[in-house]
Amino acid sequence: MPWVLYVGRFQPVHKGHLHAIREILRQEDRLTIAIGSSLSSHEPKNPFTLGERIEMLLDALDEDRIDARRYLLTGIPDTDFHPSWVTYVRKGVPSFRRVYTNDPLTSRLLKEEGYEVRQIPFYERELYSGTEIRRRILAGEDWSNLVPPSVYAFIKKIDGDARIKEINVNE
Amino acid sequence: MPWVLYVGRFQPVHKGHLHAIREILRQEDRLTIAIGSSLSSHEPKNPFTLGERIEMLLDALDEDRIDARRYLLTGIPDTDFHPSWVTYVRKGVPSFRRVYTNDPLTSRLLKEEGYEVRQIPFYERELYSGTEIRRRILAGEDWSNLVPPSVYAFIKKIDGDARIKEINVNE
Amino acid sequence: MPWVLYVGRFQPVHKGHLHAIREILRQEDRLTIAIGSSLSSHEPKNPFTLGERIEMLLDALDEDRIDARRYLLTGIPDTDFHPSWVTYVRKGVPSFRRVYTNDPLTSRLLKEEGYEVRQIPFYERELYSGTEIRRRILAGEDWSNLVPPSVYAFIKKIDGDARIKEINVNE
Amino acid sequence: MPWVLYVGRFQPVHKGHLHAIREILRQEDRLTIAIGSSLSSHEPKNPFTLGERIEMLLDALDEDRIDARRYLLTGIPDTDFHPSWVTYVRKGVPSFRRVYTNDPLTSRLLKEEGYEVRQIPFYERELYSGTEIRRRILAGEDWSNLVPPSVYAFIKKIDGDARIKEINVNE
Amino acid sequence: MPWVLYVGRFQPVHKGHLHAIREILRQEDRLTIAIGSSLSSHEPKNPFTLGERIEMLLDALDEDRIDARRYLLTGIPDTDFHPSWVTYVRKGVPSFRRVYTNDPLTSRLLKEEGYEVRQIPFYERELYSGTEIRRRILAGEDWSNLVPPSVYAFIKKIDGDARIKEINVNE
Amino acid sequence: MPWVLYVGRFQPVHKGHLHAIREILRQEDRLTIAIGSSLSSHEPKNPFTLGERIEMLLDALDEDRIDARRYLLTGIPDTDFHPSWVTYVRKGVPSFRRVYTNDPLTSRLLKEEGYEVRQIPFYERELYSGTEIRRRILAGEDWSNLVPPSVYAFIKKIDGDARIKEINVNE
Repeated sequence: MPWVLYVGRFQPVHKGHLHAIREILRQEDRLTIAIGSSLSSHEPKNPFTLGERIEMLLDALDEDRIDARRYLLTGIPDTDFHPSWVTYVRKGVPSFRRVYTNDPLTSRLLKEEGYEVRQIPFYERELYSGTEIRRRILAGEDWSNLVPPSVYAFIKKIDGDARIKEINVNE
Repeated sequence: MPWVLYVGRFQPVHKGHLHAIREILRQEDRLTIAIGSSLSSHEPKNPFTLGERIEMLLDALDEDRIDARRYLLTGIPDTDFHPSWVTYVRKGVPSFRRVYTNDPLTSRLLKEEGYEVRQIPFYERELYSGTEIRRRILAGEDWSNLVPPSVYAFIKKIDGDARIKEINVNE
Repeated sequence: MPWVLYVGRFQPVHKGHLHAIREILRQEDRLTIAIGSSLSSHEPKNPFTLGERIEMLLDALDEDRIDARRYLLTGIPDTDFHPSWVTYVRKGVPSFRRVYTNDPLTSRLLKEEGYEVRQIPFYERELYSGTEIRRRILAGEDWSNLVPPSVYAFIKKIDGDARIKEINVNE
Repeated sequence: MPWVLYVGRFQPVHKGHLHAIREILRQEDRLTIAIGSSLSSHEPKNPFTLGERIEMLLDALDEDRIDARRYLLTGIPDTDFHPSWVTYVRKGVPSFRRVYTNDPLTSRLLKEEGYEVRQIPFYERELYSGTEIRRRILAGEDWSNLVPPSVYAFIKKIDGDARIKEINVNE
Repeated sequence: MPWVLYVGRFQPVHKGHLHAIREILRQEDRLTIAIGSSLSSHEPKNPFTLGERIEMLLDALDEDRIDARRYLLTGIPDTDFHPSWVTYVRKGVPSFRRVYTNDPLTSRLLKEEGYEVRQIPFYERELYSGTEIRRRILAGEDWSNLVPPSVYAFIKKIDGDARIKEINVNE
Repeated sequence: MPWVLYVGRFQPVHKGHLHAIREILRQEDRLTIAIGSSLSSHEPKNPFTLGERIEMLLDALDEDRIDARRYLLTGIPDTDFHPSWVTYVRKGVPSFRRVYTNDPLTSRLLKEEGYEVRQIPFYERELYSGTEIRRRILAGEDWSNLVPPSVYAFIKKIDGDARIKEINVNE
């Protein structure tokens, strides 16, 4: 059973991600979910650590009753030398030939190495986006309906709202 | 449900690893399997890439019918600055308080950070060890019964024997 | 006698820094002065090398007759992986439990590791700030009264004005 | 016969570069052409890899019938620690005492190490510049007369236009 | 008042180091004590962290009533690219022209950059050496008289004996 | 005209290297000479810097009247993550499909990426080898006939004998 690749940052995990994963698994057997910028955290655009993003994904995928044998979670660090990023992916996950991504750089780099790249149909993109969720948290607006219930509970438990507000002071 | 940590190199995955994982899961709910020296490959002591080791583990754990929701696979790179290795683990996997390892350095580093460390009871260690398996492959001896059937098939498929022999020339 | 930590960039050392150090030493026994972004230099926001910043601090602290046994100077490099920055600090200076900083990221990272963080009361912040001093040097305005006399003399001696002007061309 | 140094990014190679190289070789015996930001590629300001930039330079220099014994091509990576950049240059190319560059940081760093730095007379700088060429490619305007014929052919062959457009989406 | 440089690993600090520092300060005004392999710790040859080595040095120098204004402590990491090590030293400490070291590589690298290098007269080298002290700790022999009393007390306090024994298992 | 790749360490350049280059150029149009372990120097097995090795190669190739348009010199650093080494080569030199090397790891890594690998016929290997030359220099034996005359002169000029002896003390 072949694997395909899906690349995202998951800052934080939201309903758009779950929608995309369900769509991909409708057409593919097994999916490696690559968590990009894996070493970035405590930054306005990347508030959560890799471990926290993994916990969010595991909880949300389990909540959606997605068969755990059909996905693999893995972190991929950013690299200054972009072709090396592709090498980290190629040698760090099960062999794959097809990739799902909407990021132009990821798309270009993988196409140049011979991979087939497919777009992910967005699901109400302006709403279900990490940027919008981080903006709402910072503004003190309601964001509870943009993420799966387990993710909302997790961020509350680790006091993620406070972290986002604190690291945005004077930025 | 809390997580615990198990650290190994899995060069390659063998029956001793599966035995340990089953033993740990008898006492614990969920287990992060940390694949150490994740960036090392194509070396006499580390022939296989992280992606290959992940495929071996997924196949073998599935073959053993271990519930995929109860384990998480992740690679951890070596670092020259040892305390930083602990930080990679702490921030890159779900939060944990207990660790299973027989490696003295890993044990010491994690204990100094306040983790509880438990030994893994070995299962015929002279036989079920990566060192013994790599030695047999190099010597052309039979090693098929030391690893799960799926791992044997995988190494044969990727021509792993030839790689081990080739990278050991003139070492 | 316990140590506390004070984190700054010191680009360049100014009277606000000296004021803060004196205030902290009024309440604490011994102070590790961590010079952040230690590898950055020759940049508009970070013109001086670590060695130059150390010389400025030593001269200014001595000028102020602060007992040299009560402080320790050390450089801390930036890291892309923020939790690793905390590890560099924790393992690179004498053990401490309390930190003085006004930087939100530093504050958050250290609080998450269990440290007590205290604010530093600013001393006429708009005036005594590295940003203002670098702006004045670039604009050719007088900045001599914003830094200790020894720091002014040192920057003149190493031709620091010219460096700041030169690296700001076309930025 | 002594060497001198010329530093550029060559994103892409254009007629201004060739003009500068000819001018320098009128006064100097042998020239090390240091290709800066050597690991950067697939970025809006740095679309081409080091290997591609080397091919462009070799083709264009050969097209201009410049004696291949009089120049050496070499890549120099960016470093966060700027003085280390100078060390990479000093230890990675034939010994030199004079440098040709218009970049203020490069100029300052090398002067502080005792090198003589000379300006390169620009050749219609608004026209013959990487920025202008990348802008034209992105805008779909004609840029063929700004680069040597061999460079134009090379970029077309590797589908460089498409890469520049693709990596600029959403930037 | 000029500075000179003294390079050592201080694993751990012993009476030979103190003897050398007193000898150097008899002839020189001010001394930068560079703690080499600053990121190495928890290894058989490098058991102690940089922070621990700094604490040992501060205690021992204070115990010897050496004027704290006459020395500066700083860590220098190892680098794979040796000339870069020299650059870290040159840009990370107060400007110096003379170096005290018995290490052949350090000596050669600094001489090639134009520094004057002087040997340190050893003080009963077979006895007062980190190698001998680590060997005795591992063997359970008495080592108390080889280090200053404050260093002995510090290592006992942080349970350094146990660490050395634990990280040497199976090495 | 296609390029092929030849990988060596050139510590130092000797007659065996020149023999190999001439043999390859008899069958191939253009040759990228990749200087491996480019950042290693001042070590017993790697005494010379990249810049020094480039000067040796340029002098020796010119002495042999080999057309400078037919070869390109480039340094390739070692990497802990071996597949990344291949990526540095692939993206850092003109596109190639065939490689000449006798190193088993280099050979295996490049074959796994689809390159054709050919052996280099050795030319009196026990004699013409970097190991033998470094051994003779250290032992004070004659080594002048093992290297091209220009290389002998260059090493004498930079006092390379003394460096080799000095860095081997106490190794």
